[in-house]
Amino acid sequence: MTFSEKYNGAATKHNSFVCVGLDPDPERIPDHLKGSPDPIAAFLIEIVNATKDIACTYKPNFAFFGAHGIAGWQALQNTIKAIPSDIPILLDFKAGDIGNTATQYARMAYEQLEVDAITVNPLMGTDAIEPFLAYQNGCAFLLCLTSNPGSADVLRLNTDQGLLFEVLAHKSMIWNQTGACGLVVGATHPDDLLKVRNIATTLPILLPGVGAQGANTDAIVQNGLDATGGGILVNASRSILYASNGSDFADAARKAAEELRETLNNARA
Amino acid sequence: MTFSEKYNGAATKHNSFVCVGLDPDPERIPDHLKGSPDPIAAFLIEIVNATKDIACTYKPNFAFFGAHGIAGWQALQNTIKAIPSDIPILLDFKAGDIGNTATQYARMAYEQLEVDAITVNPLMGTDAIEPFLAYQNGCAFLLCLTSNPGSADVLRLNTDQGLLFEVLAHKSMIWNQTGACGLVVGATHPDDLLKVRNIATTLPILLPGVGAQGANTDAIVQNGLDATGGGILVNASRSILYASNGSDFADAARKAAEELRETLNNARA
Repeated sequence: MTFSEKYNGAATKHNSFVCVGLDPDPERIPDHLKGSPDPIAAFLIEIVNATKDIACTYKPNFAFFGAHGIAGWQALQNTIKAIPSDIPILLDFKAGDIGNTATQYARMAYEQLEVDAITVNPLMGTDAIEPFLAYQNGCAFLLCLTSNPGSADVLRLNTDQGLLFEVLAHKSMIWNQTGACGLVVGATHPDDLLKVRNIATTLPILLPGVGAQGANTDAIVQNGLDATGGGILVNASRSILYASNGSDFADAARKAAEELRETLNNARA
Repeated sequence: MTFSEKYNGAATKHNSFVCVGLDPDPERIPDHLKGSPDPIAAFLIEIVNATKDIACTYKPNFAFFGAHGIAGWQALQNTIKAIPSDIPILLDFKAGDIGNTATQYARMAYEQLEVDAITVNPLMGTDAIEPFLAYQNGCAFLLCLTSNPGSADVLRLNTDQGLLFEVLAHKSMIWNQTGACGLVVGATHPDDLLKVRNIATTLPILLPGVGAQGANTDAIVQNGLDATGGGILVNASRSILYASNGSDFADAARKAAEELRETLNNARA
């Protein structure tokens, strides 16, 4: 099954564009879980169980696991195992390196961690992206315009082919020959999202920046949907994971995910 | 001790600009090591022991460890432990993400793995780089112009401020306020290296692309040296690691590293 098929299945079944970002911060894990043998996985597995009929995708953020070394890697594996097999997993890594190295990152994602998709940084060009595209059931979500303030520093540079993020959107349609590309566009830039959607008409778009980063959900749904009325993954991490830091954290996470689903669906209607 | 102090110490003591890249490919590890409990570390520790009076820096490439999961992480830790403390370690990761995530990657590098420097992808701009710069004893080697063919696709785009890699070189001098920046310039582009050196006059430059990628060593030394006659790290990975695949691999690696040191020093003279 391809990433897109799995994503479409979960999005339809759960009537949801909510991508749940898994960015575990040990300081924000509820106190009663801190003594667990694997507190990060204990926390995230409860989050997954509370949201698994709402999420269209789960997005573990590698940095928050890598910062804890082997224990973090184990937590990542344990969390991945707890995610139902009909919900796709998008590893947030921003991988980008020369071909022989990118091949190793693709193996890490698709064979070692067995995820369905990975975020990829396109700065190094075609041969840095190709090893990911070789996994035709996967999806390489290429950075296009990120949600952070610094996205203006480089991604908005004015080139002789348009703004850099527009050039990347155009290139992504060429790189998508195998159907294994998606894009990352910060939900904090709804007007630019419309420009990107008009270029990359068929690609799934990951939209980080909702929740803690404060994006306008109505505008991103209206501007981000593809011609089929789908193709968006609206990510929220902190606003779901840390909706409560008490023993009710899983219920609070579910409630935050449900509210986001409803907000997004109202914007679609 | 800062990265630069450590680098200068090792480069002077070993009279060498040779950065030994650690990209372990299990298929190319000599047969007699394949049955070791940790074949990757067994291989790399012999490489380190054979080159530790030649290297100015060691550069482990995360992808080649990450592809093997927890076993790979353990191999990376075991390898790092075997590197003498007066030779800096540059983690090749190409990290690049929003601030709260970049903070986790900086922790991974500087606190979890305890390396001295890390490669960073600057596509996402200032706030994605700042968490690395906060470690003032470290060094964030920012991608400027990479060695691969695809480097032309994005890094050579013509912007209204110059070619993209030139813009990145200029920005790096601003980002270097804390003195914690370096650059990555592919040794396969000696003319462009001169342009970058004229902009980023004081930054250490990592030069991948020698050896298996076939760069012209004379030109890169002449064009890459800073005003003090230093400031370059010329990386070779495959041409050293796999100089022989027999039981003489460590001697062959030493010989390859010595030859590269001599070639680079002759170019300097």
